Amino acid sequence: MSYCLAVSVNEGLIFCSDSRTTQGVDRISTYSKMFRFGRDGQRQFVILAAGNLSTAQATMSRVKLDIRDQAAINLMNVATVQQAADYLGDLSLNEQCRHGERDGRQCTFIIGGQIAGSEHEVALVYAEGNHITTSTDTLFLQIGESKYGKPILDRILQPETTLETCALCSLVSMDSTMRSNLTVGPPVEVLVYRTNSLVLDGYQKLEADSAFLREIGRAWDERLKAAFHLMPSLNWIEPDQSLPIDKSITR
Amino acid sequence: MSYCLAVSVNEGLIFCSDSRTTQGVDRISTYSKMFRFGRDGQRQFVILAAGNLSTAQATMSRVKLDIRDQAAINLMNVATVQQAADYLGDLSLNEQCRHGERDGRQCTFIIGGQIAGSEHEVALVYAEGNHITTSTDTLFLQIGESKYGKPILDRILQPETTLETCALCSLVSMDSTMRSNLTVGPPVEVLVYRTNSLVLDGYQKLEADSAFLREIGRAWDERLKAAFHLMPSLNWIEPDQSLPIDKSITR
Repeated sequence: MSYCLAVSVNEGLIFCSDSRTTQGVDRISTYSKMFRFGRDGQRQFVILAAGNLSTAQATMSRVKLDIRDQAAINLMNVATVQQAADYLGDLSLNEQCRHGERDGRQCTFIIGGQIAGSEHEVALVYAEGNHITTSTDTLFLQIGESKYGKPILDRILQPETTLETCALCSLVSMDSTMRSNLTVGPPVEVLVYRTNSLVLDGYQKLEADSAFLREIGRAWDERLKAAFHLMPSLNWIEPDQSLPIDKSITR
Repeated sequence: MSYCLAVSVNEGLIFCSDSRTTQGVDRISTYSKMFRFGRDGQRQFVILAAGNLSTAQATMSRVKLDIRDQAAINLMNVATVQQAADYLGDLSLNEQCRHGERDGRQCTFIIGGQIAGSEHEVALVYAEGNHITTSTDTLFLQIGESKYGKPILDRILQPETTLETCALCSLVSMDSTMRSNLTVGPPVEVLVYRTNSLVLDGYQKLEADSAFLREIGRAWDERLKAAFHLMPSLNWIEPDQSLPIDKSITR
């Protein structure tokens, strides 16, 4: 399993991914799921991958080869992030179908970035090759094990949230996911892209022994428990809601 | 979708369930998923159901008929909660198979309670009819949409946690789930069973307009946001973890 997410706010983009890959419970390995492509000052792309490892690897080497060979369509000549998402979807679908039955070889991607002269954007590319983007109401996209880490993103992220807060929120979301699903694990990679910078210089890789990663986990656990213990007591309940037990099915 | 959970701690048991049933997005209805059976002073059982509605309803009416008809095996004569779980699993599997193909008719149950002279217990009954119980390390069982609401349960529940705190934690877990999945919704039913009481008198039904339910949601949202904003800043990060971007794949 994997967990990757991207956040798009006014100030720019956040990308965050874990690095654990599992084939069953006894083949656990570590692979980066974050790939960066760009020409400083012109265009920058970040791709996150979740799903079948061989599909992800084959798709990413295709992307690199197309750039090297200056293919008719490649990340260095697409006009928009959405065109890049279509291109990525086509490559991924080709890889999945190459060996017959697609089942088990599905892979989903998040691609985001900015091309000089246009806005920063993020898209989620489904295994079928189609994609969706963020909106002013939907500021983040997730792939892989997305549920455990979603509630905090739902509560905190706003279009005007600062990139630092978005990055912290993404790391808390990642921490909750790693705590609840053992197949999601470090190193955790985070990339902060400030809109119109057109450079990918805000990269962090947090290893399992990272004091910062430990501190995030410890601090969030402590604050969450403290928050819970500040909740109103059940005695607060209105008497009229205290219904008598329905005896019709008891004897 | 549904979300039901049961918690087993030293002081007793908590059962909590939502009441929304969906068949596609345009057929949303309300059904209680909590069923109570017992003889005061002798034995008490609570059953929670998630999955196919017709299987759940048919299984529950079978349970009621078997009690009325004093069948060879029924909830009023089983020796243990685990035997009750086996019985429930058999009924459920029969119902699923009655119409041929089981697909789409799966249903999972949680059954818990106490029989005079033995400990209180909870079991999760899979669609296949087998079951698992709680343990001193695993204090809660969930069925249906379980992921959004799991992190808070993981963090708060301990064997010595009071029933009131367990009930509040279950309601917070339910609130997080309802907020992230529209197919989980009120009324929310909560039942608090104090061990050795052998009566089911701690029942609450919280309607959509319940001020208490609203207060739980509001208070938790507020406290969670406050907790997040107390997190250490990203500037805390060690400089040595700030790696230069890998240029090998950029041009």
